[in-house]
Amino acid sequence: MVERFFSERNLKFLLYEVFDAESLTGFPYYEQYDRKMLDMILIAAKELSEKMLWPIFQDMDQTPVELVDDQVKVHNSVKDLMKEFGRGGWISTTVPMEHGGEQVPHLVAGACQFIFCAANYSASVYPALTSGAAHLIESFGSKELFDTYVPKMYEGKWQGTMALTEPEAGSSLTDLATYAEPTDKGYYSIHGQKVFISAGDYDGVENVIHLLIAKIPGAPPGVKGISLFVVPKKRVEQDGELVPNDVVTSGIFHKMGYRGCPAVQLSLGDRSDCRGYLVGEPQKGLRYMFQMMNEARIRVGMGATGMATAAYHCALEYAKTRTQGRKLSNKDPSQPPVAIIEHPDVKRMLLFQRAVNEGSLSLLMLCSKYMDMQKVCGDKEKERFELLLEILTPVAKTYASELGIDSVSQALQCFGGSGICDDYPLEQYYRDVRIHTIHEGTTGIQGLDLLGRKVFIKDGRAFDFYLEEVWTTIRTAEAFQELRAYTENLKNALERLHDITSHLKSLLDRNREFGLADATLYLEFFANICIAWQWLMQTTIVLKNLRENPSDTEFNFYQGKLYVFRYYFEYELPKIEGLAMRLKRTDGLTVKMKPEFF
Amino acid sequence: MVERFFSERNLKFLLYEVFDAESLTGFPYYEQYDRKMLDMILIAAKELSEKMLWPIFQDMDQTPVELVDDQVKVHNSVKDLMKEFGRGGWISTTVPMEHGGEQVPHLVAGACQFIFCAANYSASVYPALTSGAAHLIESFGSKELFDTYVPKMYEGKWQGTMALTEPEAGSSLTDLATYAEPTDKGYYSIHGQKVFISAGDYDGVENVIHLLIAKIPGAPPGVKGISLFVVPKKRVEQDGELVPNDVVTSGIFHKMGYRGCPAVQLSLGDRSDCRGYLVGEPQKGLRYMFQMMNEARIRVGMGATGMATAAYHCALEYAKTRTQGRKLSNKDPSQPPVAIIEHPDVKRMLLFQRAVNEGSLSLLMLCSKYMDMQKVCGDKEKERFELLLEILTPVAKTYASELGIDSVSQALQCFGGSGICDDYPLEQYYRDVRIHTIHEGTTGIQGLDLLGRKVFIKDGRAFDFYLEEVWTTIRTAEAFQELRAYTENLKNALERLHDITSHLKSLLDRNREFGLADATLYLEFFANICIAWQWLMQTTIVLKNLRENPSDTEFNFYQGKLYVFRYYFEYELPKIEGLAMRLKRTDGLTVKMKPEFF
Repeated sequence: MVERFFSERNLKFLLYEVFDAESLTGFPYYEQYDRKMLDMILIAAKELSEKMLWPIFQDMDQTPVELVDDQVKVHNSVKDLMKEFGRGGWISTTVPMEHGGEQVPHLVAGACQFIFCAANYSASVYPALTSGAAHLIESFGSKELFDTYVPKMYEGKWQGTMALTEPEAGSSLTDLATYAEPTDKGYYSIHGQKVFISAGDYDGVENVIHLLIAKIPGAPPGVKGISLFVVPKKRVEQDGELVPNDVVTSGIFHKMGYRGCPAVQLSLGDRSDCRGYLVGEPQKGLRYMFQMMNEARIRVGMGATGMATAAYHCALEYAKTRTQGRKLSNKDPSQPPVAIIEHPDVKRMLLFQRAVNEGSLSLLMLCSKYMDMQKVCGDKEKERFELLLEILTPVAKTYASELGIDSVSQALQCFGGSGICDDYPLEQYYRDVRIHTIHEGTTGIQGLDLLGRKVFIKDGRAFDFYLEEVWTTIRTAEAFQELRAYTENLKNALERLHDITSHLKSLLDRNREFGLADATLYLEFFANICIAWQWLMQTTIVLKNLRENPSDTEFNFYQGKLYVFRYYFEYELPKIEGLAMRLKRTDGLTVKMKPEFF
Repeated sequence: MVERFFSERNLKFLLYEVFDAESLTGFPYYEQYDRKMLDMILIAAKELSEKMLWPIFQDMDQTPVELVDDQVKVHNSVKDLMKEFGRGGWISTTVPMEHGGEQVPHLVAGACQFIFCAANYSASVYPALTSGAAHLIESFGSKELFDTYVPKMYEGKWQGTMALTEPEAGSSLTDLATYAEPTDKGYYSIHGQKVFISAGDYDGVENVIHLLIAKIPGAPPGVKGISLFVVPKKRVEQDGELVPNDVVTSGIFHKMGYRGCPAVQLSLGDRSDCRGYLVGEPQKGLRYMFQMMNEARIRVGMGATGMATAAYHCALEYAKTRTQGRKLSNKDPSQPPVAIIEHPDVKRMLLFQRAVNEGSLSLLMLCSKYMDMQKVCGDKEKERFELLLEILTPVAKTYASELGIDSVSQALQCFGGSGICDDYPLEQYYRDVRIHTIHEGTTGIQGLDLLGRKVFIKDGRAFDFYLEEVWTTIRTAEAFQELRAYTENLKNALERLHDITSHLKSLLDRNREFGLADATLYLEFFANICIAWQWLMQTTIVLKNLRENPSDTEFNFYQGKLYVFRYYFEYELPKIEGLAMRLKRTDGLTVKMKPEFF
């Protein structure tokens, strides 16, 4: 194994130089923190990762999750991990102090999340899901629900889940079949099946708390009829005793990757003794759930970027040490072979990985900062940050996930034949990373979310806010003469984004199916420009800092950034050309193609 | 498992309608065949696949290859398979009758190879490698070598391999360390290590015959000093007895996919008793080996396309039967959900798979036809077909392999969460297909081969012949009014190919490293245009046949082809825009980026 699974320098560059995390501590909500304390949080995340997550990254993959006598068994370290995550406050990092949390800025918590994901994605999922589930109860549940469940979850003693998917309801929750019958005893009787529930059952915790969506009989059809329930694996009796709640693990899924965390199938209420406790009001379940889902989408992006970053560091180390071949300009066989990092094509693959991962990380961290800004800004600005987060969530999730797959594949390619063998962890990253374009909403769903909703919500205000943000960066960049060509590039790209969005809008208004047919491509187009924005934003800081006589190490870091920036604009951004051509000519090809023609 | 792993209709369309396999039987060399006999060969390949290959596709993946007491154990069906491949003439399909073969046209043999690959790639490798190795002996070895080894290989009793790679010599064979010391007994004494040798040892055959490259001490440095040897696992004594030849399997590689065929590490001559028999003349080894390598590259392309085709058929069946969600134009939740094939984004993913796989298959079959044409044409035309094959081999291998990975990934995506679970074979295809951009020359190596050699060999004659072929298709297509926009597209693309090639040529001449830095992107650019040509070629036939009142089934098939054709031109071909932009601005970015900046 390599020593390094992420670049601390890059993370701090984004955190402090680009996104100015320190400035958040100037707001009353975060005033208990200063730079030194934020640094300490990062150090703690890094140490925990190095000590407990990274060492078992491969072992968790190789230790199969098993279902034995209705009980899921996972790697035996998970129990200690959850305790440690609880003890260290990692499950309640961003939770307000008044609710027992650490009230850490999302920006910093996101950076820690990134470190965990890079070290061991499967392991990172247990606390993250628990955190999201607890946050749902905290936001929308009663005080009683909070007191009964949340403290144990923050301690890492009880696992939280999001229980949405069913055998016949995945991408479309309209057909949800799980139902919740009201009783006169303050709870609902739950009946149904859930599948693909991550961390839905295992032997490392005392209890599992499902945040589960179901329909109350008589509710309106479709997603409008969905309500949210707390359904514990073991319910809490008056005396505090835990008794089985008729939630049975009826199967586990055998996954190609992301094997350290079980995905389970649950049967609820087979004996008509499964109690669910309503969260908030009936029929608002999906709206509530979307809070958790949006957080989860950002986290999935972090997961993909984290993995792909770790894979990049493996590839980098290999490229520096593996010798093979000679320079194209001097193939004299009597000279010794060179390290493969000397080959332009290998450098191209490494630059690609950095371009997409550091671009993704930047966008994801910006999303985290918007979460913070919502908390600290005045009422007038709140909508702005909310809408920016709305429009950028599908973009950040999808770009990081789709390009994360490509990035890991390129890292693997750097190893040649060794890449597909288990002597190196590349083959595991390759298997692990494939989930991210699927869970928490497939890429197709994200495309529909962006083009079918987000771009046009509130009369296009989210889109306008987004364009304003990009323009702010362009104006900053225009102060740098050497960036002139790049700012022009980005301005042109924005113009085309505008044109194509208008074109699709008018198509959409005439024929929704035609207009949305290429939503996935629109998302790709949008995302490519969005990441260019992130690189321009980073580069203005790089150029500013290069003027201040940095040390050799710092000089190399900033020079590297400049090359990656140029790589992005010269190799990646041009991909919008082909996409733009296609999107302008939308003609319903995929609508008209008949199933019988396949 | 689905019933269908390829489309017989499509294969016959390419074979008979597009490439007119029947016309080959008009040449004396193939006159023993007629259409009916060619059909029977296809039927036999299909039956063998359905009976013996397809049923164990998943089982071979799940049965690990093991090394027990220096002996590699593989799935117990492999022994019977090899016998059957031998008995049916599948190892000597294209071998001239005078050498004991079937003298089947390469075009037809390639189609059979495609069927085998689609059914079970791992299983298809054993006979294919044996065939390639035997062909090398047949082409360049002595009669004695032929008589000793080849008949047993054609019978499927002895396995053949290509033994090139060493721990320190993979992409670059310059640093080959295995050496062959001459003796006065008619053989050489071999010493060295080979790694990643596919089918390099297993318990299903009596013997393994390695076609191995090594250096004779005193040979010139670099690849010029390489000679080719036959190195059997067990050598044949005067009396015909087989005795161990000091070839020891020192390890096996644990691969993520393509697990049904072992990749082994060999130690040769540890006891100084490993005998190798020179093939042809000394120091011509690499040139000889390239015959096998070029065949192997086409076969790798077939492997990728075969797998991706099988994955497509799984996805197609799933998309037709799995219901989820409603039409974008009518989301009424009281209506039943639709099959996911009704969703434009799912159709887009299916069209993508067809576009790349049927495009790849077409190009690969064309390469096979060029092999046939070399055999049957007059002397004057021979160079033309040789050069066309030279220039198109890296393109066909790489496009099929790179896009094969993407295609399988899109097939997997159609399954949502089930795609990464072993309830469906998608996760296996995803693991299996990843090898193809690596073995038989990585994508980076293919790019250098195309731009660094093939495009400019013989004063650019290969390139000129290629352009002529594309123009012939364009002129045929121009007879169809409805293709006008597409022929214009392709003409424009060719013009840009021409410009960019000239641009890179002048750059190359000034600075080889700068000029070749983006060779991989050039290959992608070249290949995208090349596949557009294949689609235009297919479509002229489709339109012609649509005019002849086809049956409903035939009408649907041809309509499908038209949609896939349009998909290719409207969604895939535009990718050259971004590539062209990059290639025109080549500025040595990846050359100048310093290792210490990473």
